[in-house]
Amino acid sequence: MELYSGYIGKLIEELEKLPGIGAKSAQRMAFHIINMPQERVNRLANTMMEAKSKVRYCKDCWTLTDREICGVCSNPARDKSTIMVVENTRDLAAYEKTGKYNGVYHVLHGAISPMIGIGPGDIRLKELITRLEGDVNEVIIATNSSLEGETTAMYISKLIKPTGIKVSRIASGVPVGGDLEYIDEVTLLRALEGRIEL
Amino acid sequence: MELYSGYIGKLIEELEKLPGIGAKSAQRMAFHIINMPQERVNRLANTMMEAKSKVRYCKDCWTLTDREICGVCSNPARDKSTIMVVENTRDLAAYEKTGKYNGVYHVLHGAISPMIGIGPGDIRLKELITRLEGDVNEVIIATNSSLEGETTAMYISKLIKPTGIKVSRIASGVPVGGDLEYIDEVTLLRALEGRIEL
Repeated sequence: MELYSGYIGKLIEELEKLPGIGAKSAQRMAFHIINMPQERVNRLANTMMEAKSKVRYCKDCWTLTDREICGVCSNPARDKSTIMVVENTRDLAAYEKTGKYNGVYHVLHGAISPMIGIGPGDIRLKELITRLEGDVNEVIIATNSSLEGETTAMYISKLIKPTGIKVSRIASGVPVGGDLEYIDEVTLLRALEGRIEL
Repeated sequence: MELYSGYIGKLIEELEKLPGIGAKSAQRMAFHIINMPQERVNRLANTMMEAKSKVRYCKDCWTLTDREICGVCSNPARDKSTIMVVENTRDLAAYEKTGKYNGVYHVLHGAISPMIGIGPGDIRLKELITRLEGDVNEVIIATNSSLEGETTAMYISKLIKPTGIKVSRIASGVPVGGDLEYIDEVTLLRALEGRIEL
């Protein structure tokens, strides 16, 4: 828009392309950046370019890392025979934060979604199959509980079952601390189906 | 956090410092940036640094601009004798978007807030007073309707009144389309006090 000078306008436009950033937040961020000291702006800009150019995929699990083999895969204490399949590095980080999972991961970088044209060949599935040639006891599928995540989970389980390797799926149900009143019906039914005898 | 590689972690940390960006959004933005093509990351980074280094204050109204005198102040069709005082360039842009205001602006870059130690000397008030030595008929105070905005409005009006120049304050009341039910009491009372005979 002509309201802002060319440089501010261009910055707002670039920021709006980021995920979850609407017109108003982009404006607020742009003015914040312009009011930051020049060296802080440079640091932010350089951090972006550096992260983009230095970060690559782990050769084993395909998570984003700045080493050839990521911290989890290169840790000798981790159980390499248990592989948890996740959609992306953020999901891996979510499980790592629990501190209770001792296996390794496989990052698909996406989920199968025929709706938007993402097929099995577009995610890191072939790489998972290759890993199964090694010494693997169990594959835990921890894709999201969305339509795409469930489709992907089903596809993977069908692919792995013939090999005789154990395949499991993380449970879905009522989140801890969740109030039943506010939880959608599908989740409530899932929680009922997945009930455990006490 | 150790969950992410050094470069991703550093990027998340820098992004979290931006206004309105929490830990989760910073993560999402960081991974989005890492997945962008390198030339788009460079463009975003360079746009930031360029905007920071090229944008400056308008010599007349102190708005952020990339010219010596901003588009509004340099427009001969604008009425220079009417000055609208706003807190920042975003507020100026909000009024410009209406397309109905034909005067010029004065951007304070803040509001008086004794609570966080911002006094009259910390905003562009001296510069406003200097402008009043010219041919000015009216000063419209359009600071926010917050405690700080009201304090600033009161301070400015007291400062200007002795000069004989007309001082006005934009109306506060129920927003157009606003449902009374959801509007706070202070606004409702303001709207009542400011009622206009029909």
